[in-house]
Formats: sequence, C-alpha cells, structure tokens
Amino acid sequence: MVKVAINGYGTIGKRVADAVKAQDDMGVVGVAKTRPNFEARLAIERGYDVYAAIPETYGDFERAGINIAGTLQDLLGEADVVVDCTPGGTGAQNKSMYEKAGIKAIFQGGEKHGVAEFSFNAACNYEEALGRDFLRVVSCNTTGLCRALNPLDKEFGVEKVRALLVRRAADPNDAKKGPINSIVPDPVTLPSHHGPDVQTVLPHLNITTLAIKVPTTLMHLHVLNVVFTKNPEIDNVKAVLKKAPRIRFVSAADGITSTASIIELGRDLIRPRYDIWENCIWEESVSIKEELYFFQAIHQESIVIPENIDAIRAMAELEENGQKSIIKTNKAMGMI
Amino acid sequence: MVKVAINGYGTIGKRVADAVKAQDDMGVVGVAKTRPNFEARLAIERGYDVYAAIPETYGDFERAGINIAGTLQDLLGEADVVVDCTPGGTGAQNKSMYEKAGIKAIFQGGEKHGVAEFSFNAACNYEEALGRDFLRVVSCNTTGLCRALNPLDKEFGVEKVRALLVRRAADPNDAKKGPINSIVPDPVTLPSHHGPDVQTVLPHLNITTLAIKVPTTLMHLHVLNVVFTKNPEIDNVKAVLKKAPRIRFVSAADGITSTASIIELGRDLIRPRYDIWENCIWEESVSIKEELYFFQAIHQESIVIPENIDAIRAMAELEENGQKSIIKTNKAMGMI
Repeated sequence: MVKVAINGYGTIGKRVADAVKAQDDMGVVGVAKTRPNFEARLAIERGYDVYAAIPETYGDFERAGINIAGTLQDLLGEADVVVDCTPGGTGAQNKSMYEKAGIKAIFQGGEKHGVAEFSFNAACNYEEALGRDFLRVVSCNTTGLCRALNPLDKEFGVEKVRALLVRRAADPNDAKKGPINSIVPDPVTLPSHHGPDVQTVLPHLNITTLAIKVPTTLMHLHVLNVVFTKNPEIDNVKAVLKKAPRIRFVSAADGITSTASIIELGRDLIRPRYDIWENCIWEESVSIKEELYFFQAIHQESIVIPENIDAIRAMAELEENGQKSIIKTNKAMGMI
Repeated sequence: MVKVAINGYGTIGKRVADAVKAQDDMGVVGVAKTRPNFEARLAIERGYDVYAAIPETYGDFERAGINIAGTLQDLLGEADVVVDCTPGGTGAQNKSMYEKAGIKAIFQGGEKHGVAEFSFNAACNYEEALGRDFLRVVSCNTTGLCRALNPLDKEFGVEKVRALLVRRAADPNDAKKGPINSIVPDPVTLPSHHGPDVQTVLPHLNITTLAIKVPTTLMHLHVLNVVFTKNPEIDNVKAVLKKAPRIRFVSAADGITSTASIIELGRDLIRPRYDIWENCIWEESVSIKEELYFFQAIHQESIVIPENIDAIRAMAELEENGQKSIIKTNKAMGMI
C-alpha cells in the first residue's frame, strides 16, 4: 500500500485524492492546503487528514475550526510519493523541499519539462517511468493530444499534425478570468507551447499547434489534422482510436452536439463532479479529405487524473505493465 | 445616378442603405420592411422612404404612425437595382418577383449560388459582373476567405488551404440564439459549406474548411493554413496581404489582442455602428512553419457591405475597372 501525499487541494488535488482513494494498492496519507476554506472542510468530511501547506497559516485553520493534522513537512515525512497539485510554477519551487524530504514527487503540466526531466502519459511511456523519483504529468491539452496521436502514429505513421486548440477561458468555479464575449488568439504568435509539450512525450512527432481562447468554461475542443505516411482507410483509423485507452467516441446523431451535451452525459453517468476522464471524439467528424480531420473535446479539470494514478503506480513499481495499470486505474475510477 | 431599392432593412439592409447613400453615383429610392419597428422609424429619420414589403402589413405601419410610401411592388417600379437583404432563403423566393418587375437584383450569401448563377467578390471577379441582371454577394466568411486567399494565390500559387472558422454564435442584437457556454462543432461533419462556397468565386482553389460555433457575438475568427506551390518569404506574403484591398493588419503589440479590441478600434475610429469592413489579420500571427499560418477576424455584420456597393456599380456598368470601383467605394464609406 503506497502512501500518497497531495500538496495542493484545488481543481486537480481534490480529484487526485479521490482517485487514489478508489485504488486498492495506494492510499491518501493527507492533503496539504494553504487556506482554510470550504474545500478544506470537505476534505475532512471525505476522511482526509488536512495539513497546513504554509506553516504560518496553521493558526488560521485552527481559528476556522478546521482540525489540522500538522504541517506539509509532517505530511511529507509520512508518505512515499507526493503529488504536487499546486498552481503552475509553484511545483518547481517545491522540488528542493521534496528532495530534502527524500520523497518521490509528481508534478503537473503547469510546470516546465525540466522540473522532472521526464514528462508522462500512461499510454505513451509508462514503462519509462518505472521507479523514477520525479515525473511530470503533462497538461490536459497535451494529454489529450498524446492519447489520440500516439496510437495513430504507431499504427499508420504520422508525417505531420496540425492542431488548433480552442481553449475554455476559465474553469467553471473561476469567477475572475475572461473573456466573456470575444475570441482571443492565445498566443497570437505561432506555435503555441502545446506542440513542443507533446514532443516532451513523443519527441519524434512533427506537430504544429495554434491556440485561441473562447468564452466558455466547460471543455477545450481540439481540431486535428493528421497526415500519414501510409494511407489508412477511415474505418481502420476509427478502429485504432476506439481501441486506444481513455478515448470515448460521441455522436451528434446520439444527441451529443456540443461540449455542453458531453458535460450533461457526465452528469447523467453520475460521474463524481461530472468528470469526463476520456478524450471525447465526435464519430461524425472523423473523416479523410486527403488527410485525417477530427474534433475532440477535452475536460480540462479531470483528464489528467487517471494519468496521475498510473504515474504513482509506475514510480512505486506496483505494476510493470502500463496497459495493466491503465485498466486497473480505469476500473477503480469507474471508467468502462 | 443609379436608383437602388433595398428589400429588407435588417443587419445588412440598413448598412447597405447608408453605404449607397454615401456614394455619388447611386442613391436609395427606398427601403422595404416587413414590420413597423424602431428600425423603420430610424429609416425615415435618416431620410429613406419606407415601403411595406408585405402589402397586408401596410395598415400596421399606418397604425404605428409610420409614414409609408407604398408597397414593395411600387418600390421595385421606381428602381434600377434591388439589393435583396431578406433572411437566407427568402431571396430565392423573391427572384421571380424581381424578374417580373424587370429589375436587376443582388442577393446575399444566405442564398445558394444557383439563385443568380454568379457569386461575387469585388477583388476576385468584378469584371465578370459587368452588366449582369442577377448576382449573389457571398457571405461574410466566404468574403473574408476570398479577400485573403485570392491575392496569395495570384502571387504565389496556392496548392492547398485548410481553414477553421470559429464562428460567433449570434449577432449582438440577437437575444434568442446560443450557445452561451459551450463549443459546438457546426457542422460536426466535414467539410463546412464555406469551402465549396469559396469555390463559387475561386473555382480552382483547393480548400477544406471546418467550422465551430462559440459563445461570442462580436466577430468570427479564421485560422488559416496555406500551402504554396512556390516558397515565398514571409515578408513577401505580408506585403501581398497588406497591399490587397479591404485587409487591415492589426497587432497584439499595439494592444489589439482579441476580437473585443478590434471592435473597440471600430468604436474609436467613430465608424458607423462601429463597423469593421476589412479583414483584420494579426501581424504577429502571420508566420511560416513549413506552411503559412495566420489568424484573421471577420466582422460578420459589415464586411459584405462594400462588396454590395461594388456589385451595384458593376451591374449598372458605372465603372468598368474593379480596382477603381473598390477605391471609390472605400473612400466614400470612410475606409482608408
């Protein structure tokens, strides 16, 4: 039973905690938070010990009536692996602390590749992660791209990928960010960082990415164009994508006409927090016009969660086979 | 002085009326409306005679205290050219009425190519429009694509275009349509109708288009990828685009970071209704990564207006040279 600490209990941290709890070969030792808010209260209700991420705020938790188990240092001393779910950039600052504590650490995609010198996607490079001390789970968009492109590349040889990322402007609980009525080239220059980020996992892949931000909170949408070295039949392309792990086909004919209806699907599946852990590819969009095109939606809040679980399993060498870890993770989380 | 009738005084019609009024070789005989609303009142304030588009509603205008000049039939009898600005599909139904009245007619992009068997963009095929009785000005997105792609094709030879159209969900005054918080593949199948529509103007152009709808009302945004037969330098590409008519370069470095800031530019230029008649191409986005990529924003309400003016001039044979007509139209409307 691998003991897991979660540093940062926001969008990613709270989901990782629940996903760890759902496994039978790992458990949550505790979660570290900077502020005593409703999420800290709910963490305790869910049975997690809460630790003060910043020692100075220890008193704030006590004054807020939140039973605090100790400081982040205490937590690190009790765990085998820490999953750093702090805001982008903070993970890099935390690394020396983890090194001093002698604990394995997983960083998120908001950190640069250099933070761990190894960027992870379960279906692409699980075996290379075995026994590592530091690892970075790539961001939601990069995860979505890797999941779809790696099996296509393996099967048909990808000569070139052009991807436009239509990014949600803010997460649903974020009442600060915009835009609320405009389209923002972001970045306005080419390429966006996502292409190079995909190459931290799949170094040989020839990919150019562009990104824009639009006024929605639910999901990202990717518009993908793929040129192959071979000329696959469309049915074979669909078969490869359907067989790949953590990819779900959705269909406009079935009533899934937008990111909003995918979220409604997540709610009707009674998923925790309505999370959609899979890439959602529109069946009708998968088509070959000289080259392959398709649309896929990516749930930014949850898609990396199962990857974090597999990363823990690989680093702790609980399972040597990536496919087996993926299946185990999926089953425990309730993905079919 | 060519006498112009406007049938339909909504988003397009009211703008065409003002643009005709601004020219010295044509004038507005009157505008036809279906309903006596604030736009009808304002038409009269602006000096346009208002006609009842549907004879049965004549009394409605009188009861609303709007001085009505006659019916649409009366209006058609007094004009040389009618610009049909009715909702998509209605133009085709009106065609036989225009034929009976023996009047030249311009249709909008909401109609199919077959309505006039000739689709128009001033910079692409003005000379072919000379003296025609029927003509269709292509839609806002198609106009934007034609304006940018034709000069590139002429100069460097376009081998292939891949375009994603990120469409505004509704016009600013439209309180009925959505989405308000999601991304909609629209259509979910490939290609969108825009590629074939571009080919009604530029038949030889190899173009594939995809489209999605997002929750914004201000402008469309196009993500363009162009493969050339020649290998132009980026500076030459920019020079060709900058020289092309009705294309405006904008720059993030200059503070134009989104469609919202382009609209603020239109307001600060004190443009009527803040209209942006030009394609707006982001300078920083124009780049060659093996192929050309750039972002352009398209103001759906106004981009086709100068094209309608040139169309009138071509059909009435007021000017034989397309370039001269474009310059004349632009100057009269206040485009620099």
